[in-house]
Amino acid sequence: MNSQNKKILLLKTGQIFFATQGFTKVGLAEILKQAKVPKGSFYYYFNSKEDYGVQVIQYYVDNYVKNLRSLLDMTEVTGKKRLLIYWKKWQDTQCSNNYCGACLTVKLSSEVTDYSEPMRHAFCFGTDRILNLIAAIISAGQNDQSIANTSDPFLLAQQLYQQWLGASLMVKIQKQSEPFQLAFQYTNFIVDSKI
Amino acid sequence: MNSQNKKILLLKTGQIFFATQGFTKVGLAEILKQAKVPKGSFYYYFNSKEDYGVQVIQYYVDNYVKNLRSLLDMTEVTGKKRLLIYWKKWQDTQCSNNYCGACLTVKLSSEVTDYSEPMRHAFCFGTDRILNLIAAIISAGQNDQSIANTSDPFLLAQQLYQQWLGASLMVKIQKQSEPFQLAFQYTNFIVDSKI
Repeated sequence: MNSQNKKILLLKTGQIFFATQGFTKVGLAEILKQAKVPKGSFYYYFNSKEDYGVQVIQYYVDNYVKNLRSLLDMTEVTGKKRLLIYWKKWQDTQCSNNYCGACLTVKLSSEVTDYSEPMRHAFCFGTDRILNLIAAIISAGQNDQSIANTSDPFLLAQQLYQQWLGASLMVKIQKQSEPFQLAFQYTNFIVDSKI
Repeated sequence: MNSQNKKILLLKTGQIFFATQGFTKVGLAEILKQAKVPKGSFYYYFNSKEDYGVQVIQYYVDNYVKNLRSLLDMTEVTGKKRLLIYWKKWQDTQCSNNYCGACLTVKLSSEVTDYSEPMRHAFCFGTDRILNLIAAIISAGQNDQSIANTSDPFLLAQQLYQQWLGASLMVKIQKQSEPFQLAFQYTNFIVDSKI
């Protein structure tokens, strides 16, 4: 395995561990054992567990943004449809047991942002990139008139994103998908409102 | 200090530690040192750290519910005003550095619900009690016609609660209060909508 692949393997493994168990609970030894990478190699790529956390968040956001950009580029579909496809995918990913896609913002942000400024910055920068792309989809929907709501696209994106973050917490608490149905209802209502 | 007071001291201390640092990160030794309670006493009140976590969540919710009930009882004020007072207080508590009031649902639920069924149940039961009281305030507002939205009060309460949970995560990430301003705008809009 070449050096770049080894680094990506470590990032992928970290993403799954952190998405399932959080940051503090997981020991590096466990991750290295799973990835079959020696400790020395780890410190070749990362300065510390915190630095590793930052890079796992960045790696997660990079892939997330790639998918979101493909959705933005589906210009044959209305903006509103693209926006609803995005939330439908959110719901499907968070309800499945496939933790490769589980949202790191939901799982980690509350745990780590209070004590790690570098990880908080990674989340702040990451969510900003995500919100800008959701805003671009909303903007496309306002232009093609599939979205009636004329609010500022970025602020509308953040309002919707907040609803879905909160719904994801409630899904974890209740272990049922009803909070997502409420979030969907809300999204449709807000998007169709003439504000 | 009598036995009941010692237990409450432990619960209060745990609430502050968990609200600031999360569950896994905090060691029992640290809590006992702060509360000046010997380990033996701890195990007189609690079977394990997990049992302690459950009781801290219940203690937090009991106090939360007490405050929310006082608000519900302010019948000289319209339902809408009571609802807005509630969210205003949420914003003030989460933005201050007074961690005694910091929301345990925001801080802990994502961290612990994936691996502790007893703590998940405590959050599930606790948020249900909270949502029922918010729903009662909404219902009062629908009856006195200060709230135009005629949706089911419990579902509306949960939709609003989700928005504020998500906003709280974003406040932690961005370290600024703008997400709460968006949540406020949203709350006003939804409450005034004729659905």
